[in-house]
Amino acid sequence: MKPHPNTAFNADMQNLEILILKMGGRVAAAIERATQAFVSRDAELAQRVVLEDQHVDALESDINSAVVRMLALRQPAASDLYEVVSVMKVAGDLERLGDYAKNLARRVPVLVQSDRIEGATAAIRRLSMLVQSMLRDVLDAYTNTDLALAQTVLDRDVEVDQMTNTLFRDFLTHMMEDPRNITVCMHLLFIAKNFERMGDHVTEIGEQVIFVETGEQPVPRAKGESTSQITGPLGVDGTG
Amino acid sequence: MKPHPNTAFNADMQNLEILILKMGGRVAAAIERATQAFVSRDAELAQRVVLEDQHVDALESDINSAVVRMLALRQPAASDLYEVVSVMKVAGDLERLGDYAKNLARRVPVLVQSDRIEGATAAIRRLSMLVQSMLRDVLDAYTNTDLALAQTVLDRDVEVDQMTNTLFRDFLTHMMEDPRNITVCMHLLFIAKNFERMGDHVTEIGEQVIFVETGEQPVPRAKGESTSQITGPLGVDGTG
Repeated sequence: MKPHPNTAFNADMQNLEILILKMGGRVAAAIERATQAFVSRDAELAQRVVLEDQHVDALESDINSAVVRMLALRQPAASDLYEVVSVMKVAGDLERLGDYAKNLARRVPVLVQSDRIEGATAAIRRLSMLVQSMLRDVLDAYTNTDLALAQTVLDRDVEVDQMTNTLFRDFLTHMMEDPRNITVCMHLLFIAKNFERMGDHVTEIGEQVIFVETGEQPVPRAKGESTSQITGPLGVDGTG
Repeated sequence: MKPHPNTAFNADMQNLEILILKMGGRVAAAIERATQAFVSRDAELAQRVVLEDQHVDALESDINSAVVRMLALRQPAASDLYEVVSVMKVAGDLERLGDYAKNLARRVPVLVQSDRIEGATAAIRRLSMLVQSMLRDVLDAYTNTDLALAQTVLDRDVEVDQMTNTLFRDFLTHMMEDPRNITVCMHLLFIAKNFERMGDHVTEIGEQVIFVETGEQPVPRAKGESTSQITGPLGVDGTG
């Protein structure tokens, strides 16, 4: 018996979802391991995270090929198309998240050779934990089409931005207090900025979950991030 | 007379290409104007660049909708599908380029209030000119399916990375020489890093041009960028 076209479509969508979850799991592990390598100053673990990013890239490539094959085979109608196209967008966000984890890992061997900045490791770790919890929740929201959970992820991105702003002020202060801190603090600034960007990509996934289900494009968010507005070591403007 | 399906597909593709070129033109203008605002310390022009980014975002949204409509209507075969899907990828890269121009513009009002760092403005301007010329060429390569031109864009990205590395060393040196330079140099570091990322996105567009025509995924590039490996004010490792 020839399966009903919709059933075939649903089976394909389920396969795509499994691939997304597999990719999401790998990316979550990469962020966790990169953070662990950073916290425990483990250059060897960091190197493994860098190398393993290729598996994430390969999964994105698999997903894109599967999407194209599916479009050609099933020729889904418009509403289903949005769902399929959204899979590609989510895969793109996950790929970028993997890149940021790799970028963090790439800085570890350099940081291992530098003095520790008081409080920085713990603060970056907290930021990472927040982003990781958002990623976990957004993947759950994606699997279960849980719009309320997706919305909480969007809301929590403001916290990420606020934590990043605070870290920026701290690192700039450390730089000014002692020029020997400048290089290491520069790396820490970029690490914080990377987590802030990770928060944005996790948020974009949450927006896709909401968009596919409701057809509503998310309203532009009030960005909590204002590191581009920092005017002095302790001067962050009020727009954040 | 009902048009041949292929003709309809080609007409749609042409429309999509026009939208991409329109979007590319707007993004190129945004980068040029943000750079001009940065060079001439023009906070008002910078503000206009920030506001106008919404038009770029709207164009991406139009392109994605047009792609979905087209997929539903024309149900193209696999080889054509790659071409259509690639339009979405290019639009995504252009949207990100627009974001980086906006980010540069957002830093201008802060930089206007700071002392100038000797040579920095001219160096950033050169970096911007290089990225802009790459963007112009990649859009030409896209329109004319000019693989050789696309390849020159890929090659020039190494220059962007090298210029970024040099700027990083310079800015770190300035920070160490005088802590009063730290905040402004931090903004300059992020500006340089943004141009380096712009180069990556322009390169991704060039890779799409080659991929759609030849079916060949680009080989992973030897990255010239090595700012994550900076260990001291003048110590950039040799991997770049």
